[in-house]
Amino acid sequence: MAVYTHVSAEAMADLLRAYDVGTLVSAKGIAEGVENSNYLLETTGTSGQGARFILTLYEKRVDIADLPFFISLLDHLADRGCRVPRMIKGRDAAQLREVCGRPACLIEFLSGVSVSHPTIPQAYATGAALGEMHAALTDFTGHRANSLGPTSWAALAERCGDDLDQIAPGLKARVTEECHFLAAHWPTTLPHAVIHADLFPDNVLMLGDTVSGLIDFYFACTDVRAWDVAVTHSAWCFDGEGRNFNAAIGEAITAGYDAAFGRSEEERAAFALLARGSCLRFLLTRAWDWLNTPADALVTRKDPLAFLRRLDHYAG
Amino acid sequence: MAVYTHVSAEAMADLLRAYDVGTLVSAKGIAEGVENSNYLLETTGTSGQGARFILTLYEKRVDIADLPFFISLLDHLADRGCRVPRMIKGRDAAQLREVCGRPACLIEFLSGVSVSHPTIPQAYATGAALGEMHAALTDFTGHRANSLGPTSWAALAERCGDDLDQIAPGLKARVTEECHFLAAHWPTTLPHAVIHADLFPDNVLMLGDTVSGLIDFYFACTDVRAWDVAVTHSAWCFDGEGRNFNAAIGEAITAGYDAAFGRSEEERAAFALLARGSCLRFLLTRAWDWLNTPADALVTRKDPLAFLRRLDHYAG
Repeated sequence: MAVYTHVSAEAMADLLRAYDVGTLVSAKGIAEGVENSNYLLETTGTSGQGARFILTLYEKRVDIADLPFFISLLDHLADRGCRVPRMIKGRDAAQLREVCGRPACLIEFLSGVSVSHPTIPQAYATGAALGEMHAALTDFTGHRANSLGPTSWAALAERCGDDLDQIAPGLKARVTEECHFLAAHWPTTLPHAVIHADLFPDNVLMLGDTVSGLIDFYFACTDVRAWDVAVTHSAWCFDGEGRNFNAAIGEAITAGYDAAFGRSEEERAAFALLARGSCLRFLLTRAWDWLNTPADALVTRKDPLAFLRRLDHYAG
Repeated sequence: MAVYTHVSAEAMADLLRAYDVGTLVSAKGIAEGVENSNYLLETTGTSGQGARFILTLYEKRVDIADLPFFISLLDHLADRGCRVPRMIKGRDAAQLREVCGRPACLIEFLSGVSVSHPTIPQAYATGAALGEMHAALTDFTGHRANSLGPTSWAALAERCGDDLDQIAPGLKARVTEECHFLAAHWPTTLPHAVIHADLFPDNVLMLGDTVSGLIDFYFACTDVRAWDVAVTHSAWCFDGEGRNFNAAIGEAITAGYDAAFGRSEEERAAFALLARGSCLRFLLTRAWDWLNTPADALVTRKDPLAFLRRLDHYAG
């Protein structure tokens, strides 16, 4: 959420020579996304009109080996009309290069803002955009294992260990129990596909009630496709503290999704279970970050208990 | 250098209704300037073309009581053709309002990038822009005391105390001696005026060799006018560590300034003394920040010794 690597204006101007995008007009470091360094660049463009791009330098959190997967995923989606930010091809057709010693991509800029208090039409549009994304991916052959999927949860809980009870008394027992429950009941026969896996409101750009972009695909992976709907549901239907479940927002998300792509009876029946899995995943990664981030760091620690409350909702 | 206050897209859209600037299209938190929260906003504009603005929320480092001075200063400069970012007037003509409990301004966006390795033409253009700014301010009647001016240095050195020697052995004695020397020799008869007082390369936007904007006026104050030239000289003629003095860059800055505004013989004669004062000012504020910022904070601590080296240069 900060700029970790300073890229000089001179280095940016050099970089842009590798692309057919005009020359540099403005560059601002932006506070956005996972732990990468991001700049919003403006160039003269090539058609008399200015153009904008995001320059991303990949820091430690993204595995370089995964970048070709993300690049081909976004190309595939954009080719099929989904509003996602493409990695721009250079004059040499390369989309990935190195800036200041880090792997870097120049990325399409998309208009729109991330809403904090979604309306029902916005939730419907988001569900529909997710469904359109899944439809567009039915012929995508890329694959990336979900390192934060169901098989990882028990080990992550183990690594957090007794410290979980520092976050809330009894949390360790609750998490262990949920890991066992989900391991025993997790659906094994539902269709798998590449999913976004992190479609929080932050990662949806909107113009009014229209989705203008889905962004931040760096958790995209191959997993139970209907899990993506459950992740989105758990991310959108509560306030930031995980309270005040809004059923109408949830219904709008699933209605939008079902209209655009649809779910089988089996997928619908597994919904609460999938949602519990989503809550456990974010509870665990937030707990790990909480226990390993100094309280006075400038990076905002996200409260793990906001996902314990959501878990209570779906398990209740 | 971070976004301290999160402003929701909904709150930004509400805010923009107070202005005649169109509706919100995009908003990115940017890592820029002193300790304020800054967003780069794009709107639909009012003439069929999109428009861009900076939204600044003033956090602790800027004194609210000073904001009317900054607003009138920037209006005065912009009215006289200087490329500085105006605070935008709302439909009610107000330029200052409150967002998320903080004083806030919507500010004109200026194109251009801050160079890291200025060329001679860029240094000349910067000196000239500083001179044009001084010319435009000859009839400006605003006043703001320089809280970081010569009368503050001894007290600031006192507050840093023995800890200065933690930064470098002997630093306390050197700083004390320099405070005494400057107190005894500081020129008292040079013309005073409102000055920028912080014209580092970061605060100059350039398009090629042209200055497209002077920004970050939050240290602007009334002080010895020729000091501004010395501050700019000390900020531009060395590398980031305060080494490798580049005489040609320095000559270009003063030549550009003298062509645009000019200095008296007395001002020229005082140059080295004024430059020593500039070095002591940045040495002291950086030392204070160094001693009071945890080493692991995400805010980058700037090395005070980079200005001790510059001081050695001008005193040598």
